[in-house]
Amino acid sequence: MQTQLPIISVNGILGKEVSPLDRGFTYGDGVFETCRLMSGRIPLWNRHSKRLLEGCKKLLIPVSGELVQNYLSQLVALLAPQDQADAVIKIIVTRGQGGRGYRLPDEVVPTICIGIFPSAQYPKSHSTYGVNLRVCDQRLGTNSHLAGIKHLNRLEYVLARAEWADLDIADGLLLDTNENLIEATSSNIFAVKDGSLFTPDLSGAGVAGVMRGFIMEVLSAELGLGVSVKKMSICDLYLADEVFLCNSILGIWPVVKVCGAPDHVFAVGPTTIALGKLLEAKLSAMIREPLLL
Amino acid sequence: MQTQLPIISVNGILGKEVSPLDRGFTYGDGVFETCRLMSGRIPLWNRHSKRLLEGCKKLLIPVSGELVQNYLSQLVALLAPQDQADAVIKIIVTRGQGGRGYRLPDEVVPTICIGIFPSAQYPKSHSTYGVNLRVCDQRLGTNSHLAGIKHLNRLEYVLARAEWADLDIADGLLLDTNENLIEATSSNIFAVKDGSLFTPDLSGAGVAGVMRGFIMEVLSAELGLGVSVKKMSICDLYLADEVFLCNSILGIWPVVKVCGAPDHVFAVGPTTIALGKLLEAKLSAMIREPLLL
Repeated sequence: MQTQLPIISVNGILGKEVSPLDRGFTYGDGVFETCRLMSGRIPLWNRHSKRLLEGCKKLLIPVSGELVQNYLSQLVALLAPQDQADAVIKIIVTRGQGGRGYRLPDEVVPTICIGIFPSAQYPKSHSTYGVNLRVCDQRLGTNSHLAGIKHLNRLEYVLARAEWADLDIADGLLLDTNENLIEATSSNIFAVKDGSLFTPDLSGAGVAGVMRGFIMEVLSAELGLGVSVKKMSICDLYLADEVFLCNSILGIWPVVKVCGAPDHVFAVGPTTIALGKLLEAKLSAMIREPLLL
Repeated sequence: MQTQLPIISVNGILGKEVSPLDRGFTYGDGVFETCRLMSGRIPLWNRHSKRLLEGCKKLLIPVSGELVQNYLSQLVALLAPQDQADAVIKIIVTRGQGGRGYRLPDEVVPTICIGIFPSAQYPKSHSTYGVNLRVCDQRLGTNSHLAGIKHLNRLEYVLARAEWADLDIADGLLLDTNENLIEATSSNIFAVKDGSLFTPDLSGAGVAGVMRGFIMEVLSAELGLGVSVKKMSICDLYLADEVFLCNSILGIWPVVKVCGAPDHVFAVGPTTIALGKLLEAKLSAMIREPLLL
């Protein structure tokens, strides 16, 4: 791929910047999506698009999914050759410009900002041999109106991610203010116990990841695995047979250690391996499909 | 004042926009201040500046207070004649540009965005005859790391403000997820009971307003009023003799009704009137001081 990344468009205009009156800037008043671009295709695009539009609906942002899709297609078409393009795509939709004050503007013209960034460079060993985590001190406040949405109010995550610099720690686990396990700073978490999957209830806090949904609704079903969403404590995680992380960019990573006093260690187990292989096969199949965008 | 408002500078450059990579835009990763400009002076500027810098410190944003002051002075100097300029000033400081992901950038160059907006046009009757409030359905999540800071993660406030359009409702009361009374969407709240002031504890949620601090530390002392910060329920408010709102722009507004089923009504009482008069005298005195900016 020859195109110099990142390339970013704002409402379809390459290189445009954002008004200081944009409510994304003034209040974090919007949502975002982070998607993987593989050989010019976006795996699970339907799920990303659905979540983006659902988030906007919950925040009362009247965005056109067709317009988002058009701007996205225009930008991806700039990558040459498109069918070999691997990258990360970030889409931000905000409530657009507004005046001073929280009141919704009378007329809303959403800002649709799309960026194409270089692929994430993760060590290959992460998906094979697993990663280490820590437990963050930062807690997530709970809010049932905002839970699950990938909105732009991310200060808790910024402060949590600022807690460690150790490159051997791949991510940090986040608990809510009631000490429920929720997720990691940039991924969702699953526990495997007696051959079934368990993942935290996100009705009070957290981001309902696209890969989490794909694992729960498609991959686990194809492997005949039970899946339970439930309130989980960090102890529930420590008692698991296997633990893994997931998101749209990294796929599935086994967790082999949660660092602490004491450390909690896990094996890279058969269920995680099977899910990872099935995901890889699905992604490979998607690459052979026609270019949709 | 002849200058057409708003005028906005970004890092000292008039009319500049914001990078779509700015972490204020991508994560709400920053803080803001809203100040009143009266005859070219900013009352309580020292308090605004202090809170801005304390917020940045808590968020690990290395901003120079001197630089903020310089950009502010440059912008205010554009108003002619400066010593008659009445307006509202909004200052936003973010962590500046960053890459994808929550990790703090290796080098941080904060974005300092300053806007001067037309004065707020509130009915004069609000400060004399009082205002009506409602209780919002939206709840504030609690987070002791973020509580008190005027940060840019304001979706809860946006959704709360979207709950009503009735022009007779001046503001909406916000409770946290534990049903503690915290504040209103754009102001702090005080109850007067037996001649003493009570205002909600903000250690878990809410914005510690500059006018709230001035009332607690200066105005109440001059009037010999006791002040208690405590966990308050909405019932504690209903049992008060007087209730008032405050912020840097509106000053002090008596609350005469919290609408609901049933409505709760309050008289415009002597303590609120005395505080309002003292504040007005203080502000008038500030206008006669030399131009500091």
